[in-house]
Amino acid sequence: MSRAPKWIDTDVHNAINNPKDLLAYLPKAWHAQWLGQGIGVSSPYYSPVGVMRKDAKPPQGGQPGGDPGYLLKHHLDKYGIDYAILTGSGVLGISLHVDADYANAVISAYNDWLVEHWLKFSPRFKGSILINASDPAYAAKEIDRMAGHPDMVQVIMASGARMPYGQRFYHPIYEACERNGLPIAVHPGTEGRGIAGAPTPSGYPSRYLEWHNILPTNYMTHVNSLVCEGVFEKFPKLYFVAIEGGICWLPHLMWRMDKNYKALRDSVPWLKRLPSEYIKSHIRLTTQPIEEPEKPEHLVQMFEMCGAEDIVMFSTDYPHWDFDNPKVVLNVLPKAMRQKIMAQNAIELYGLYEAPPAMGEESASGSPDEGIAEAEVGGQ
Amino acid sequence: MSRAPKWIDTDVHNAINNPKDLLAYLPKAWHAQWLGQGIGVSSPYYSPVGVMRKDAKPPQGGQPGGDPGYLLKHHLDKYGIDYAILTGSGVLGISLHVDADYANAVISAYNDWLVEHWLKFSPRFKGSILINASDPAYAAKEIDRMAGHPDMVQVIMASGARMPYGQRFYHPIYEACERNGLPIAVHPGTEGRGIAGAPTPSGYPSRYLEWHNILPTNYMTHVNSLVCEGVFEKFPKLYFVAIEGGICWLPHLMWRMDKNYKALRDSVPWLKRLPSEYIKSHIRLTTQPIEEPEKPEHLVQMFEMCGAEDIVMFSTDYPHWDFDNPKVVLNVLPKAMRQKIMAQNAIELYGLYEAPPAMGEESASGSPDEGIAEAEVGGQ
Repeated sequence: MSRAPKWIDTDVHNAINNPKDLLAYLPKAWHAQWLGQGIGVSSPYYSPVGVMRKDAKPPQGGQPGGDPGYLLKHHLDKYGIDYAILTGSGVLGISLHVDADYANAVISAYNDWLVEHWLKFSPRFKGSILINASDPAYAAKEIDRMAGHPDMVQVIMASGARMPYGQRFYHPIYEACERNGLPIAVHPGTEGRGIAGAPTPSGYPSRYLEWHNILPTNYMTHVNSLVCEGVFEKFPKLYFVAIEGGICWLPHLMWRMDKNYKALRDSVPWLKRLPSEYIKSHIRLTTQPIEEPEKPEHLVQMFEMCGAEDIVMFSTDYPHWDFDNPKVVLNVLPKAMRQKIMAQNAIELYGLYEAPPAMGEESASGSPDEGIAEAEVGGQ
Repeated sequence: MSRAPKWIDTDVHNAINNPKDLLAYLPKAWHAQWLGQGIGVSSPYYSPVGVMRKDAKPPQGGQPGGDPGYLLKHHLDKYGIDYAILTGSGVLGISLHVDADYANAVISAYNDWLVEHWLKFSPRFKGSILINASDPAYAAKEIDRMAGHPDMVQVIMASGARMPYGQRFYHPIYEACERNGLPIAVHPGTEGRGIAGAPTPSGYPSRYLEWHNILPTNYMTHVNSLVCEGVFEKFPKLYFVAIEGGICWLPHLMWRMDKNYKALRDSVPWLKRLPSEYIKSHIRLTTQPIEEPEKPEHLVQMFEMCGAEDIVMFSTDYPHWDFDNPKVVLNVLPKAMRQKIMAQNAIELYGLYEAPPAMGEESASGSPDEGIAEAEVGGQ
């Protein structure tokens, strides 16, 4: 008997265990560069706690998040999560490589590898089609090439970019997403890398902590741009998924945009609704790393201010250091709000109306305290 | 009999009526450049409603905000405002000029002109010492030169910058501010100009509306940097005044900084308190343009989340287009909170414990609806 999914994790990082795993899908001309340089877009920021959870390393070796079977057992089964939306690991920076041809070759190889090694492994894995946002014409072709696979549920690109994502340069990407009925997602971490330029309006912060604190400003930039440039009037079926960029900045941005729009709307005559209405209709956000105010009721107030109940989706960011435990992290929310965020909003966005057949009721339960200790990092 | 000030406006723009007015204070070597180029740091963004209120133009001619007598009558007397903190008009961009020597000459001339034309005109005008933030050694000397004037109550610089303002390059400025007991203020509008680079982590937005929506992200950048770099441990008496950068983004930033600090504090061993505690102790923010949520109680909740009662100061931004009317704008706040924001916080920061002698009780009252219609712009 089928049931609706209980929990859907909208940000799970599937890693390439060994660079050689991609060679079967990559034209030979790029093999040496791939093995020698990899993504080729490095970060100047160093995390003192590392980026990966040490307990996520598969026992048989390889990268955290690199083994589909271990990821199922160590994460999805442990918490009773029905589906994982796979977002890749360390590959998004390819959009900021100097050489678009190399980037295009790598993303196509990655997408083929994703189908073979992950999507065929379990129906509980759902894929994100990686694109090179710096070459929208190629990106559109790649979306058309991959969108036919039934387990590909969205398109993904780096949030680090040379231009705000509302600008017309990127519209072929949105046209292809809409044509194929797929949302477009961004994920942070590439801010300040490669051809993206400085990660703030005032240059480069000094340390990982400071850089990580300020990442949501790039999300504000893109959301603001998408609305002001009229992307959601031009592509009325498009959804933009802001993964791992925070949530509680949204009320401020919506209020400021609406206030300014009332005075300055002459300059954006293509808009027919308040900016905040486009955000509520077309933007989706994921929870991790969820803000943790001293008074938990403040989080509830914030969620009410921005209509989070309808636009926010649960995520853990497994296997990264700042993982949010699904059994703990949103318990302060009212039950109805929590249920929509833990599953319903993702069910609707990704069309995942039924839980996977392989997953019995028993594996969706389990001790509520299981695994909490090891999931916590650095005293949070 | 002396009384405490009722209202203090912490952001009033005093304009240079005619570029020639500065020549008496500027070395002759720079006259031609000043008359030919002015500030020399132009904006690519064009406001469709203009930047200045049309009704603020003095009847006898000249620039809005250019006539001290008319500004007193048209703004301070009309609303019963005791003091105006003068923040300059169109001069802050000089910090982003390519030539630091030219910038230094202009700022010194401006400061001398400010004393002669404004501070001597009325005790109700309080001055901000303009500095060129791109030459901290000269800026420190300029602060020492001007700080002795009893009506100079703070130092001011552009918020647009090449580096986040916590970095050690700028510390001579903060040392001079602390030495002279003056807060350091920033004011927006120069983001994306001159040597500052792009105004977002993803390049240049297309229009004034979009650019204006996103200005607070640069304030988040600076506040984050000042705290993380330990500026308030090194200069424990320093106050940083974030003028016209919004307020409701503060809870999100404080929560994110505190959460990350708990995990990553090893990389900032000089910090002894939570980031949000430094913000509450050392950052002050001004109200205009105040956020206007559909439900006014959301503004009150937001203010409670960040302790706005103790750190926010009232401002109008006269004579700019998005002026906030003091008789309307904060009426949704609880009375005690409103009183602290309308005067008490500025009284304490600037040491303005007594209302100016020239101002009788009668001019502090007046019809509550007076001037509201003309102050509203574009349907707000």
